Amino acid sequence: MGMTERVYLMREGTVAKHFADRMLDAVEEKQAPLCVGLDPMYERMPKQIREIASKSRGILSEQAAAAKEFSQSVIDIVAEHVPCVKLQAACFERCGPLGMRAYLEVVDYAHEAGLMVIGDVKRADIGSTAAAYAVAHLEEAFIGEGDAEHSVAVDAVTVNPYFGIDGVQPFIDVAKQGGQGVIVVVRTTNPSAKDFQDFKDEEGRRVFERVAERVNDWANQAGCVGDSGYSLVAAVVAATYPDDTRLLRDLMPNSLLLVPGVGAQGGTLADASLAFHEDGWGGLVTASRSIIYAWERPEYEHLGEVNWEDAIEVAIVDAKAGLAEALARRAATV
Amino acid sequence: MGMTERVYLMREGTVAKHFADRMLDAVEEKQAPLCVGLDPMYERMPKQIREIASKSRGILSEQAAAAKEFSQSVIDIVAEHVPCVKLQAACFERCGPLGMRAYLEVVDYAHEAGLMVIGDVKRADIGSTAAAYAVAHLEEAFIGEGDAEHSVAVDAVTVNPYFGIDGVQPFIDVAKQGGQGVIVVVRTTNPSAKDFQDFKDEEGRRVFERVAERVNDWANQAGCVGDSGYSLVAAVVAATYPDDTRLLRDLMPNSLLLVPGVGAQGGTLADASLAFHEDGWGGLVTASRSIIYAWERPEYEHLGEVNWEDAIEVAIVDAKAGLAEALARRAATV
Repeated sequence: MGMTERVYLMREGTVAKHFADRMLDAVEEKQAPLCVGLDPMYERMPKQIREIASKSRGILSEQAAAAKEFSQSVIDIVAEHVPCVKLQAACFERCGPLGMRAYLEVVDYAHEAGLMVIGDVKRADIGSTAAAYAVAHLEEAFIGEGDAEHSVAVDAVTVNPYFGIDGVQPFIDVAKQGGQGVIVVVRTTNPSAKDFQDFKDEEGRRVFERVAERVNDWANQAGCVGDSGYSLVAAVVAATYPDDTRLLRDLMPNSLLLVPGVGAQGGTLADASLAFHEDGWGGLVTASRSIIYAWERPEYEHLGEVNWEDAIEVAIVDAKAGLAEALARRAATV
Repeated sequence: MGMTERVYLMREGTVAKHFADRMLDAVEEKQAPLCVGLDPMYERMPKQIREIASKSRGILSEQAAAAKEFSQSVIDIVAEHVPCVKLQAACFERCGPLGMRAYLEVVDYAHEAGLMVIGDVKRADIGSTAAAYAVAHLEEAFIGEGDAEHSVAVDAVTVNPYFGIDGVQPFIDVAKQGGQGVIVVVRTTNPSAKDFQDFKDEEGRRVFERVAERVNDWANQAGCVGDSGYSLVAAVVAATYPDDTRLLRDLMPNSLLLVPGVGAQGGTLADASLAFHEDGWGGLVTASRSIIYAWERPEYEHLGEVNWEDAIEVAIVDAKAGLAEALARRAATV
């Protein structure tokens, strides 16, 4: 399917450079291996945003407008500090088709602000269906009207490994052509991650280790590794299990590790630093709710909801400094 | 999040009756435990449909219009023969926001035709995100303008188990209120299903068996089992591994089993019959490409692409008769 689609969709303005090389350049430029997760939940947005949104008609269109407005405001604040944002597709999907339109508009806005963009979609299915999802989420889509019409596509997507390679390869094939990345969920932060991911074989090896071993195979396919030595195939590794993080860093040496779970989900920056190689590269810590709803946190609530933008800025600056410190401390101990 | 959302979305016209009870009534009425999968792929649609679609503007809007037109044509043909259709979300998502609008319009059209509708979305994430997906895909969305505006929601969704119960419970919670179902992917039809699903513990028990055991626990939560004795928590079980199908039927006695893999993916109707209890109930065979692209099959190609509607009708009548025969043969041997 990939090739046929290319004819229809004509990728405009694609940066052919390799995903991992681009991401590492961006990390170096901003001096921060840090990604801000945009999970706009209507109920938690600042009152001012909900008021702006309520000028739109209808309930879902109102929520879609708010998701866009809030995400763009966060981008305005964080763009100078971090290399990357991650959009949580669920938060946009729940606003219906207008929400998916808002998702594309926010991707476009983040690119205009010079940010890399990860689409956190966690899709997977059997091969032919995965191919349709790969086109849906990695090929360029068109937004804007008339002369302003232009194309937009994320720089990477997250995928679920349960179907095995059949459900992942179509994403790799499309990503390879577009200089994009595929980030496989290996170890998740949630309490019931253990339900299946920790299932052990007779040698004590767990499912998530096996997934990591296969991800490493996929990452080293022909044409997947960039000049930086890192692959376009990356992995999601929870910060919440430090011993496992060390192990997973070793099992997937050529993969960037996207590390959620710091802050709202209980992991520390020191835990997250274990996802990096000893040279300080190879990890990308992602923080969502602890940044975008920073004014709700005890340490920032004195700023007040009305100053939510200040709270976000202070939180991202603090997170950046804290991560630099955690990485320096780790470097000193290895 | 579930409760807050209810206030905004006000479920209109919800059929409070239990998902499994409704599905079994529908199976009895049509005398066929058979579901037609709507996987509209632009490249494979009949030329006539692609011509109708090309009157629309733009590439993705053209494909969205074709997906809607083709799906509705298939519904017109199959509605009198089967109780249920399953929409493959990937095929609509790949047409962008307009595709998601078409998805909702096809769900609505199928309901008007008296069909149950499964949204094959295979979503999952950590709890708070899964809650957003559950609202996105099980709560009612609004379509139509002005006086014609009305709400629409599928009768069940498919979900991926990799996150454990945290990624599934939010769907169960929303589904319980709406008389809907949650269909957990247990055993898939694709060749690389074995990558992780077949991973064995020291007693030789495989990951998919463990998933089935947990699905059975989830299915028997308070309030999940209907008058029919079946739960709103169902499972996807591939027809392509007959011994495993027998085992999975035993491990999840109260769950309806949705059985893909017949036809295009190599399973037979005899294989699929093993997903049913000895009384002939509890299974729902789903066939997609072998029905909706029936004119491409050797046995129907004499009808010609121009008579694609006839080919679909003959294929669904044949599939229905073949499944009845397979179930009768199985009943005779037990």
